[in-house]
Amino acid sequence: MEFTPGRVFLLRVPEGEDLVAFVNRFAEKRSIKTAIVKGIGSLRNPVVGYYSEETKSYKRIELFGIFELLSLLGNVSLRDGRPFAHLHVTLGNANGDVFGGHLIEGEVFVTELYIQELLGEPLVRKDRGNNLSLWDEEKD
Amino acid sequence: MEFTPGRVFLLRVPEGEDLVAFVNRFAEKRSIKTAIVKGIGSLRNPVVGYYSEETKSYKRIELFGIFELLSLLGNVSLRDGRPFAHLHVTLGNANGDVFGGHLIEGEVFVTELYIQELLGEPLVRKDRGNNLSLWDEEKD
Amino acid sequence: MEFTPGRVFLLRVPEGEDLVAFVNRFAEKRSIKTAIVKGIGSLRNPVVGYYSEETKSYKRIELFGIFELLSLLGNVSLRDGRPFAHLHVTLGNANGDVFGGHLIEGEVFVTELYIQELLGEPLVRKDRGNNLSLWDEEKD
Repeated sequence: MEFTPGRVFLLRVPEGEDLVAFVNRFAEKRSIKTAIVKGIGSLRNPVVGYYSEETKSYKRIELFGIFELLSLLGNVSLRDGRPFAHLHVTLGNANGDVFGGHLIEGEVFVTELYIQELLGEPLVRKDRGNNLSLWDEEKD
Repeated sequence: MEFTPGRVFLLRVPEGEDLVAFVNRFAEKRSIKTAIVKGIGSLRNPVVGYYSEETKSYKRIELFGIFELLSLLGNVSLRDGRPFAHLHVTLGNANGDVFGGHLIEGEVFVTELYIQELLGEPLVRKDRGNNLSLWDEEKD
Repeated sequence: MEFTPGRVFLLRVPEGEDLVAFVNRFAEKRSIKTAIVKGIGSLRNPVVGYYSEETKSYKRIELFGIFELLSLLGNVSLRDGRPFAHLHVTLGNANGDVFGGHLIEGEVFVTELYIQELLGEPLVRKDRGNNLSLWDEEKD
């Protein structure tokens, strides 16, 4: 799917916000339907998910303490008619060890967030019957 | 090297595709010579590489099972006159542990792929005699 | 904070450069005040930091050898009136294990660097009295 660039935002998310909820609300308030999202910073007690093909569900992995947010990568698209953030993270601890997964929740300590809106026919997430909500596949 | 932005794509790669082959083919079909590439998702049995300066070659690291694709970052440039994808990944397992390297191959389970074409004098990979194929260096 | 896109650069950083110093100098020479930064490659003996809320300071984590640079993500903004790079990295070793943190220093073996300038009211880092130099927070 081809898009044209829309608005560009670079900002610091307020401390204490949940990062996933913030991105969803930010997009909704500005009627952003499609976007790519990036960021760095640090998160408190992040919870990430691992999708298991066996159980067809996300395993919840709870991390405790403050972690450097080494990479936040993802996108915003439409799900049930509303903007929906899909975000993956890598997180570093005090020893430099790295953990990560699909971001379920994470309290912002510091997050520097970049959002690039994309304009065009919106991508729509559809339930695939396996607890995954995905866009249609696209041929090369 | 300075570029101007070209076409922008955001899409879901079909399940079962090899991610590296897909990006190469996608670029070739659209005559994309230079691009930056990003993505998230999950991969089956990914194989990553670590370049050893001692042996002047890539060590192959084979991972088994499904891994969350936490970050896919890289670019497309020209090698032997054709578009060539250089991609690095971080991958998460069911415990939230993270592995990664230079992406050699990986079967797509789900991949949400962003490609930003760049227009301008193409960057060209040249063999450096050490199994590395690199652009010319650029001064600041 | 909303921006409009400025210049776009994709280049190979010369071997032997310190990556943080290079990005700062690159931005300063071109009067880049705000930018997003991405990259992949490999670094020698990188040093990363973990910010401890307890000690209000960065713990230094020194890594030895060559590491694949799996993700370089960050930005440039103004600090003390000059462009200042804030960069986070994930790094892979010969076993595919991944380490990371706030990039303090790292000698470039190979780095393919992307810089997207952003035009608009510059973001300014201000000392927050805890060894963190941060932009003002922004509401959603």
